[in-house]
Amino acid sequence: MAAGRLAAIFIAGDCDAEPQTVARPNFTREGKTMDMKFDFNNMMETFVGEHGFSEAELETMEGAASSAVQAVQKRRGTGWLGWMELPYQQPETLDRIREVAERFRKCRDFVVLGIGGSALGTIALKSALLHPWHDLLPAERRGVPRLHVLDNVDPRWLGTFLELLEPESTCVNVISKSGSTAETMSQFLWMRDWLKKGVGKRYTDRIVVTTDAVKGALRAMAKEEGFKAFTIPEGVGGRFSVLSPVGLFPAAVVGIDIQSMLEGAASADAAAKAENLWENQALMMAVLAYLSFKKGRNIWVMMPYVQALRDVADWFRQLWAESLGKAVNRRGVEVHVGQTPVKALGTTDQHSQVQLYIEGPHDKVVHFIGVEDYGLELEIPAERTGQDSLDYLGGHTFNELIKAEQEATALALAEAGRPNCTHTIPKVTPFTLGELFFTLEMATAYSGELYDIDAFNQPGVEAGKVATYALLGRPGYESRKKEIEAAKAKRQGRFVIG
Amino acid sequence: MAAGRLAAIFIAGDCDAEPQTVARPNFTREGKTMDMKFDFNNMMETFVGEHGFSEAELETMEGAASSAVQAVQKRRGTGWLGWMELPYQQPETLDRIREVAERFRKCRDFVVLGIGGSALGTIALKSALLHPWHDLLPAERRGVPRLHVLDNVDPRWLGTFLELLEPESTCVNVISKSGSTAETMSQFLWMRDWLKKGVGKRYTDRIVVTTDAVKGALRAMAKEEGFKAFTIPEGVGGRFSVLSPVGLFPAAVVGIDIQSMLEGAASADAAAKAENLWENQALMMAVLAYLSFKKGRNIWVMMPYVQALRDVADWFRQLWAESLGKAVNRRGVEVHVGQTPVKALGTTDQHSQVQLYIEGPHDKVVHFIGVEDYGLELEIPAERTGQDSLDYLGGHTFNELIKAEQEATALALAEAGRPNCTHTIPKVTPFTLGELFFTLEMATAYSGELYDIDAFNQPGVEAGKVATYALLGRPGYESRKKEIEAAKAKRQGRFVIG
Repeated sequence: MAAGRLAAIFIAGDCDAEPQTVARPNFTREGKTMDMKFDFNNMMETFVGEHGFSEAELETMEGAASSAVQAVQKRRGTGWLGWMELPYQQPETLDRIREVAERFRKCRDFVVLGIGGSALGTIALKSALLHPWHDLLPAERRGVPRLHVLDNVDPRWLGTFLELLEPESTCVNVISKSGSTAETMSQFLWMRDWLKKGVGKRYTDRIVVTTDAVKGALRAMAKEEGFKAFTIPEGVGGRFSVLSPVGLFPAAVVGIDIQSMLEGAASADAAAKAENLWENQALMMAVLAYLSFKKGRNIWVMMPYVQALRDVADWFRQLWAESLGKAVNRRGVEVHVGQTPVKALGTTDQHSQVQLYIEGPHDKVVHFIGVEDYGLELEIPAERTGQDSLDYLGGHTFNELIKAEQEATALALAEAGRPNCTHTIPKVTPFTLGELFFTLEMATAYSGELYDIDAFNQPGVEAGKVATYALLGRPGYESRKKEIEAAKAKRQGRFVIG
Repeated sequence: MAAGRLAAIFIAGDCDAEPQTVARPNFTREGKTMDMKFDFNNMMETFVGEHGFSEAELETMEGAASSAVQAVQKRRGTGWLGWMELPYQQPETLDRIREVAERFRKCRDFVVLGIGGSALGTIALKSALLHPWHDLLPAERRGVPRLHVLDNVDPRWLGTFLELLEPESTCVNVISKSGSTAETMSQFLWMRDWLKKGVGKRYTDRIVVTTDAVKGALRAMAKEEGFKAFTIPEGVGGRFSVLSPVGLFPAAVVGIDIQSMLEGAASADAAAKAENLWENQALMMAVLAYLSFKKGRNIWVMMPYVQALRDVADWFRQLWAESLGKAVNRRGVEVHVGQTPVKALGTTDQHSQVQLYIEGPHDKVVHFIGVEDYGLELEIPAERTGQDSLDYLGGHTFNELIKAEQEATALALAEAGRPNCTHTIPKVTPFTLGELFFTLEMATAYSGELYDIDAFNQPGVEAGKVATYALLGRPGYESRKKEIEAAKAKRQGRFVIG
């Protein structure tokens, strides 16, 4: 019902209230498979005035946009575009994931050791698809393990974590593509030690490794100690790995329908092939973001109006920042591009960030993610309190309240000349989440083409890694260590207060 | 010991490795009370090159800075600067908070209903000062209630929350200054109804109200139904309310030393009175942020390297965004100022955001928050795995690892010409957290003076509230509703894909 109503508001295509504008080609594609809608009315000058785009402006991008599609589609499955084939994994792969998952599902606590791309997808899957209070439910109501993703190395946070666990009922999935990520491998040495002490030789049964097929210390340890292992396929970088065993195995352990998630991704893949800018959500998002950046909008705010998608925004932060934040373009020219992705949450951040979004600098785009069906209808009691400032609420549902606030915020932004756009999905399910992940990945890949940068490397983090090695005394980094000590000495007693 | 070591690195003032620069007045104040240090070496051109400030540039701000201190200090306790007196609350107030808290501590679940400034402080207090896995601990180990802060109105998230609770063992603290916040009051009507159904007339004993002294629907209900109530003092806006009963009561319920927190705030208050820019952390932060914004750095990233402070960054987001994101200055001139605050977390976001911070546009300042003592020392097992890429880790502690990564990231940023600064606190305690809160509040107030804006209003959110009222059919908003419907109709079938 809700779906029908919203569809009526946003899709019905024939009536056009403003006849003076050029009629666009029909936006409703034939053979539509995508469940998701992308509404970018509030990016356009018709609705946000001078800070919006004209249709002519977008039309100038049509050529570059279709070239971007061609370039990416031509390379699909090759080089660092291996992730584009993830929706089409062999049934045997999924069967093996499910089979191991079934054993691990018997644990009370399932612990993922990973950071960045090895953590953010699983965290997003957890908040999107499990019971919202999963870890706090009693075991019998939960049915599957508690799911903990340890993506930091804070000693107190880690050390006290063990107070929750018993080795007998704990399983560990350690994830690192390179097999040498300092944070993850330190955690692994520590939990492996703890498991060994707790359950003796059987510790090997409690551990699953997800890493490169052949390379790295983690693969070597898996072979030597006999851990079960999954492979991160070639051409799948961390931030594009949620639909590989990196995300699929933890998802399967907690009972998420991984097949359906891949089907959603496949539907997004099909939709993202359209070369016509006006029919391709991922491509249009890329073009709007690119043009916005060129006009000084260096901030992209992703603001879901659904609690379950809050961590999708964090997952997207990595995707957008690491992929598009680059110093040089493909010709080696210094460009220093990249929007800073910001996570916000409706309605919560209306009471924290929206003041700035409405009145502050013209430096951002707000990207709402909404749902038609929240999966539960909850009423605000209709009882009269006698207070005018409250009684208008009674009898409504929380569903109506949050939807009204989302619409109100989008409209208030538009009326203040603040560009914004909205993805709406019918309901948060494995299928639609697969769609959303893949659409955002495609938008990122297309953006890389528009910026003419390599969206799949991350050369900027190397210096920090080297400095960490040096500070920890890793052999071979002695001279760097001396440099760092000199740098510290120079800062002594200089610009410090306190 | 750790404190001593770090102090040696960052404070010892006499040796100056670069004699060519002007010696600053001694940064170590007489009668020092603050535990916190502010290191802004990496904001300076000496260390980050052309993207840093010269001392001369900061010196030009000395006059404006001391005027800001005078202006704020002259108005302290008056108007919207009532929050400046919160560190000095009467013992009777604290006694009453502790007395009510003691009763509520017997509940199994303590639920805070609030949003924005009524939620973010308590969430920050919880992650900073409770056991890191508080809600997952068994009741006997926890000793105090589980603490839930419901700062959204997602129907599924709310509705399923009740599955965790039993009315007999649940207490509610509803917080709204105006007494008419739509989200909070809807939640309150709903939980009040649930409590009534569960425990009958005794529901009134389970509810504490925190609101204005006399005004608003919530105060009226408290009187009529006989709830215990705390007052949000005059001149304390939501985002400056963490040290009022808004934050103090929930803190006291879960056993946090609120007296000590206020003492920390008082020590920061004393330190923030210094009119000399070079001796005042809050003032220097305000000046650095202001000048950075003027130079096009419209993003302020707060990046704690301690898991316990992750939600302080969220609290700060509201403080910075709502206070400084303003359309007009005090003379009514359109200015559209305000940095966008971004939350990041070390080490986690090294694997998500640091690529962008190092290589992307020169549009941000990174503000690290570090600690000297993590409160727990945790070893990485020294066992040799035979893997070169791992064996340098063994025998170190996680404490050394996270500290090395923090230093490495700050240095890598500096070497890439990216300005950054660091607050270091000895250890996360109620005292130091009070210091940190108050220092950041003072930095915000001083920033308001530099921008010459009203840092204490939020006119930009009014339009969204009105639109929400209209959409929900609140009497008196009928014509606005018609306008909104017309706006929607205009967008039908226009720029929508899918």
